[in-house]
Amino acid sequence: MITITHSAGQYPIHFTSLTQALQSLPQDAVVLTDENVFTAWKGQLSQVPNVCRIEPGEGSKSFERYREVLSWMAKSGCSRRTTLVALGGGVIGDLGGFCAASYMRGIPFVQIPTTLLAQVDSSVGGKVGIDLPEGKNLVGAFYPPHAVHVPSEALSTLPDRQLRNGMAEVWKYGYILDAPLVDCLTRTDVRDDLQPIVQRCIQLKAEVVEADEFEKLGIRAKLNFGHTVGHAIEQVLRYEEFLHGEAIAIGMVVEARLGESMRITAPGTASVIEAQLKTAGLPTTWSGLQNPDPLIAAMRRDKKAHSGQLAFSLLTQIGECKLVENVAEGEVRSALLNS
Amino acid sequence: MITITHSAGQYPIHFTSLTQALQSLPQDAVVLTDENVFTAWKGQLSQVPNVCRIEPGEGSKSFERYREVLSWMAKSGCSRRTTLVALGGGVIGDLGGFCAASYMRGIPFVQIPTTLLAQVDSSVGGKVGIDLPEGKNLVGAFYPPHAVHVPSEALSTLPDRQLRNGMAEVWKYGYILDAPLVDCLTRTDVRDDLQPIVQRCIQLKAEVVEADEFEKLGIRAKLNFGHTVGHAIEQVLRYEEFLHGEAIAIGMVVEARLGESMRITAPGTASVIEAQLKTAGLPTTWSGLQNPDPLIAAMRRDKKAHSGQLAFSLLTQIGECKLVENVAEGEVRSALLNS
Repeated sequence: MITITHSAGQYPIHFTSLTQALQSLPQDAVVLTDENVFTAWKGQLSQVPNVCRIEPGEGSKSFERYREVLSWMAKSGCSRRTTLVALGGGVIGDLGGFCAASYMRGIPFVQIPTTLLAQVDSSVGGKVGIDLPEGKNLVGAFYPPHAVHVPSEALSTLPDRQLRNGMAEVWKYGYILDAPLVDCLTRTDVRDDLQPIVQRCIQLKAEVVEADEFEKLGIRAKLNFGHTVGHAIEQVLRYEEFLHGEAIAIGMVVEARLGESMRITAPGTASVIEAQLKTAGLPTTWSGLQNPDPLIAAMRRDKKAHSGQLAFSLLTQIGECKLVENVAEGEVRSALLNS
Repeated sequence: MITITHSAGQYPIHFTSLTQALQSLPQDAVVLTDENVFTAWKGQLSQVPNVCRIEPGEGSKSFERYREVLSWMAKSGCSRRTTLVALGGGVIGDLGGFCAASYMRGIPFVQIPTTLLAQVDSSVGGKVGIDLPEGKNLVGAFYPPHAVHVPSEALSTLPDRQLRNGMAEVWKYGYILDAPLVDCLTRTDVRDDLQPIVQRCIQLKAEVVEADEFEKLGIRAKLNFGHTVGHAIEQVLRYEEFLHGEAIAIGMVVEARLGESMRITAPGTASVIEAQLKTAGLPTTWSGLQNPDPLIAAMRRDKKAHSGQLAFSLLTQIGECKLVENVAEGEVRSALLNS
């Protein structure tokens, strides 16, 4: 178990099985999940009386779905004391978390992340929210869960592409905070035993979010390495073609190149990262980078940007990074065109 | 100035003029207001570059308007550092507050309440939110403002009905917490000098919300005297016919009667309250009370209700109250039918 401390208390992260996680829930808990997860875990879920199933995919982090889930909660008689459980990947966790944060001004919330991406990233740290047509995660809250249950067996049914998707964030933790983790990832086939990797990533994230819960000190923003470009790619593609981790993989290569050209990142880092991510089966470039304008426009709407000034989490070397604000547009344009 | 302390800090309540309040805002602040307030204060507002105007009325505390304002903020280039200013009554404050609470997971928020109701009630305490078709304020947050500016001259342009609307909450403060305030209201024409009354009510509310910011201890719920019935009336009437304070005035009479029949409220209190509110030009009954079923159904969805059990803030005597849970439906039905 890992415990996360935040401004209003603490919450535990349990490493457990799905069956155990479901058994530990309060009797009147309601579960939000998607059709895919529901199909995969139908047996276990048959004991839960109130399950709300939505369509899988980033498209469900929408206002329409947010409103539907809230109406479903009201119609199901959810009170202030009802626990909402988000069982699924990052979309379910983010959407469910924002529903829990705002329904009756906040009800108990439990995360059971079933994808590698959600386990190592979105289920920890209390960030919840939905997308606007104007940008990803533009609406949401900092709302720590009451507990996170990380079910290891969930990863066994995950398609390969979804595993690689999560691995992109695992590599990111190594690049920004933990050079030994990068070494480990290059030397072994981590899929044989993901559990220690998941725990290491959660530990790394826990330390960062405890130091800067509300993303005000420039510490938490470091986790955004690859994300300024990655989010922009996702937005330009309307969340089609690439999964989040895939867009972030491309973003990490571009941002490593940007860091090198700005003399912030050690020379040669971008090529190393590019080769490692390629070997990991992740995309490292995209033809749309040759059309920088819409990407830069999206970056100016990034939450790290102030008054439209571009901001990036850039590596100094593998295992270390820092937040860099007011990056010149020309630098970003070159990095995109050279990637 | 009054200072309110909450879990994450403090905020000041300034008693000031609208001109001074607007001058004190950061340069890049954006203002949310309604068409009526905009028309009334056009001159002062001409200096503010970014003003979002919406239709007046409770109907604007809707998902549609929430979404529109957020999109407007994104299109106007609001960043995490932009201050959103809610200039208007309770609807503007509640809607604007929820936009500020959730835009980019929370941006600075300033309240400038222009109605008596908003000045003595909704602008203080950090409750923000919108309505669902299933119930009032079902979606929202506890989001303390960074500052509240209470402009006294705003009340001078307020129509009589709006003033009486706010006075209903003023009477409520007297009934639940401050018998001398009730005396004062019966003896003098408070409209001659509302400022001390407004300050007294804010002081009373400040003490309550400081003691129970997140409405978890049954202390803050006391402020809901008249509101269990009042909200139900508003909901059954779809927020038409009665203004909030008018519905609450009827609710206070019904709930005083309920308290008397349950031997919680001193005998004779309901008649006293009924006479005082009548003299104040407020409604004290409504023909729809004779049809209790839809009202009771609405009360079971009230945020104070748990597992559908009815809960009320009931007076013990004028100037004192307590939260009473698990009230029998038959008692509520009788109180409605006898009012």
